[in-house]
Amino acid sequence: MNYRIIIYIIGYVMKIEAAFMLLPIVTALIYKESSIESFIITAVIAFGVGMFLSWKKPEKVHFHVREGYVTVALSWIVLSIIGAIPFVLSGFIENPIDALFETVSGFTTTGASILPEVESLDKCVLMWRSFTHWVGGMGVLVFLLTVLKMTGGSHMNLMKAESPGPSVGRLVPTVRSTAKLLYGMYIGLTIIQMILLLIAKMPVFDAITTAFGTAGTGGFGIKNDSMAGYSVSIQVITTIFMLLFGVNFNIYYLLLGRNWKQAFKNEEVRWYFIIVIAAIAFISFDIRHLFANVGTAIHQSAFQVASIITTTGFATTDFNLWPEVSRTILVILMFVGACAGSTGGGIKVSRFIILIKHAGKEVKKYLHPNQVKKIQMDGKPIEHEVVRNVNAYIAVYLFIFIFSMIMLAFDGKDLITNFTAVAATFNNIGPGLELVGPTANFGGFNDVSKLVLIFDMLAGRLEIFPLLLLFVKDTWKKF
Amino acid sequence: MNYRIIIYIIGYVMKIEAAFMLLPIVTALIYKESSIESFIITAVIAFGVGMFLSWKKPEKVHFHVREGYVTVALSWIVLSIIGAIPFVLSGFIENPIDALFETVSGFTTTGASILPEVESLDKCVLMWRSFTHWVGGMGVLVFLLTVLKMTGGSHMNLMKAESPGPSVGRLVPTVRSTAKLLYGMYIGLTIIQMILLLIAKMPVFDAITTAFGTAGTGGFGIKNDSMAGYSVSIQVITTIFMLLFGVNFNIYYLLLGRNWKQAFKNEEVRWYFIIVIAAIAFISFDIRHLFANVGTAIHQSAFQVASIITTTGFATTDFNLWPEVSRTILVILMFVGACAGSTGGGIKVSRFIILIKHAGKEVKKYLHPNQVKKIQMDGKPIEHEVVRNVNAYIAVYLFIFIFSMIMLAFDGKDLITNFTAVAATFNNIGPGLELVGPTANFGGFNDVSKLVLIFDMLAGRLEIFPLLLLFVKDTWKKF
Repeated sequence: MNYRIIIYIIGYVMKIEAAFMLLPIVTALIYKESSIESFIITAVIAFGVGMFLSWKKPEKVHFHVREGYVTVALSWIVLSIIGAIPFVLSGFIENPIDALFETVSGFTTTGASILPEVESLDKCVLMWRSFTHWVGGMGVLVFLLTVLKMTGGSHMNLMKAESPGPSVGRLVPTVRSTAKLLYGMYIGLTIIQMILLLIAKMPVFDAITTAFGTAGTGGFGIKNDSMAGYSVSIQVITTIFMLLFGVNFNIYYLLLGRNWKQAFKNEEVRWYFIIVIAAIAFISFDIRHLFANVGTAIHQSAFQVASIITTTGFATTDFNLWPEVSRTILVILMFVGACAGSTGGGIKVSRFIILIKHAGKEVKKYLHPNQVKKIQMDGKPIEHEVVRNVNAYIAVYLFIFIFSMIMLAFDGKDLITNFTAVAATFNNIGPGLELVGPTANFGGFNDVSKLVLIFDMLAGRLEIFPLLLLFVKDTWKKF
Repeated sequence: MNYRIIIYIIGYVMKIEAAFMLLPIVTALIYKESSIESFIITAVIAFGVGMFLSWKKPEKVHFHVREGYVTVALSWIVLSIIGAIPFVLSGFIENPIDALFETVSGFTTTGASILPEVESLDKCVLMWRSFTHWVGGMGVLVFLLTVLKMTGGSHMNLMKAESPGPSVGRLVPTVRSTAKLLYGMYIGLTIIQMILLLIAKMPVFDAITTAFGTAGTGGFGIKNDSMAGYSVSIQVITTIFMLLFGVNFNIYYLLLGRNWKQAFKNEEVRWYFIIVIAAIAFISFDIRHLFANVGTAIHQSAFQVASIITTTGFATTDFNLWPEVSRTILVILMFVGACAGSTGGGIKVSRFIILIKHAGKEVKKYLHPNQVKKIQMDGKPIEHEVVRNVNAYIAVYLFIFIFSMIMLAFDGKDLITNFTAVAATFNNIGPGLELVGPTANFGGFNDVSKLVLIFDMLAGRLEIFPLLLLFVKDTWKKF
């Protein structure tokens, strides 16, 4: 294990996080808030320690798959711990575990909160909270790859470990250019949303934080009623951008290059929109009697569907009170998740496509036992490796889910609360049903439950394996 | 497709079912019940049609995998429809769909009932209800293989399609001897349990029906309170035999041959008992305050754990009222299920072992990318084929589960009722939680929901693929 390169990169991540804290610091300056201190202190400490750890670039920069995965997992843990400090120092969140929960929820773009209300928080704290979504959405290691020049092809492993989905490709020949391109498109889309929100007369501060929450598919709101109080046009813009940030970013690259044909050939994106439209139609019909007219029902249905399937977690209404069919569909969408290569969480549409095709192949095997054909996606065969990994992912996913359910059961809440709490954190969504519904929060759980959910959020964002490797003895063996 | 052999076998199955109806007919004679008519009429019709269909043995007796699977699926459907007729004719169940639900629940050894109470039923009807469990437990096609002499090795496909678990082997060189051996051990164990129940002073009728329900891991009771009213010794005997019928029958064959070493090397059985003991310990601790003493808590915990993991479904207490930890563990056990090659349902312990080992291998791959080793079970490598099939099974399992949940949601029941109703039928258990808890029944669902649950029960018992093949267009194509 090349420990030196791991430490070096973690140091670098700390420096980047210190730099990121300039945003809440500037916010605090504008609004003249005293909690500026907590951010300055944290940033200075993070920068100092980061400088120390990354003082000398190691000679051996090459690393293996496992170093890449371990680096990403540890970076995210360090990132979360440091990010939690301002919450505690500013006094807005007293319990350090609560602060960690809130920060992990931010970086993993979950958006689950332990705060019963958020409007009394300082603007700079709210800004930091929403900004963690934006940073976590595209990934801090991907950001690092845009600024840190690394030689050798092995840093592709960093990107692989941090990017969501069953398989990660390079858009352009070098990893660094790919990372830059991804962040370029990410920043571009975020700015377009901000401008549209401003045009729809949203206040500047609200537009910035909402765009951060949408872009990262995070879901932290700056209002106690999430997005319910905003105008319909603001809600519609947010609906559209949630869906756009749930799309595989490769598509935007293809569209930018006017490669229409290949863009429209993408099966995952096609199925993503089919599922979205079907769910909106179903739910609109089911909730039509709850609203004054069909238009409102469709609007409310569309917002909630977009929010859940992209794992954002904003809410404009209390869908916990919706009829059972709608609740069931929303719970199922929690697991589906967005597209691979997007900022969204969940199991991902492409994994489901692979699962279905694999199952279909097995059924066909009963009919033609001797015909073995590789399953295809987007016209190309899927490697056995990818299929195997998806199957293993589903298995581990189920086991972590079961483990979390048992751990939460000790907390004495009802089964639906526990089930949807795990679903909402593990899939990085935010709200669940019942005691963790859109109008409730996660503050009612005890610290052990919160630690389990923190683990689930990290495991969900990093797609399980990087985090899991930390617990395997072999990872730490020399070889 | 060799239609003639399929029709021939289905005809034979009808004749066997007619013969099986002699048991309720004899029961009706003993108790002088007028509902004897319904069984005689049904038996005569079944025998007549069966004779007609199986009049001439087809010349081409060879059949492929798909013929085997389609035969099994269709046989079970025919078996269930005919088995439902006496319920309707006798007037004890008026709605034909309810009657079909009850019969499918019987043959698939689910034990879910639409009847609000059973004590007013005629003895012969109760006997038939319990006997369907016994027939369905080891399988009617396996029974057919003991009486019908078939040439060619292809009838192994019948056994494969009907026997539970990821892979089925022959105990002895010929399929027919294997089938005879299995039924021999099955009858032996059933009789031992009957004798023990009689020694514990259970009435004869109760001992026979209870043994049938235990052996098939079915769960239909002949009392409204299931097993709660019986003495502790009767409950303990039933606990032990439920667990024994959840063990892979290969083990009994090995034990009969004094092949101790190989019997104890079996990983699945070892894990099965580890899970059982752990669950009993956990739940006993969790419910200790609900009972007068620790002994009773352990006894109640053991009975319910054995009943759920073996997917039997007897109850001695209303575990729907137990604390959340115990409820959660029981729900998880619903999915675990018994051992492959037993009469129990569920996903099966061996599938979970394969899933875990496969996932572990994938994790290790991140550490040693170039080392590819087959995973092992009982000291032997598992074929890729089996692993792939288990993964496909899990995928299809999840999709059917989701589909069923959505269909049931339209019925307006709560999420836990729907979730555990699907879990309890798909895994062939019987009772779930809330509105389908141990003291409730499935009569409250509408006919569409019941048809969905009927499909789930059949899919669960036949391990999905045989039933699924019926819906694939290619199955019916000539080639």
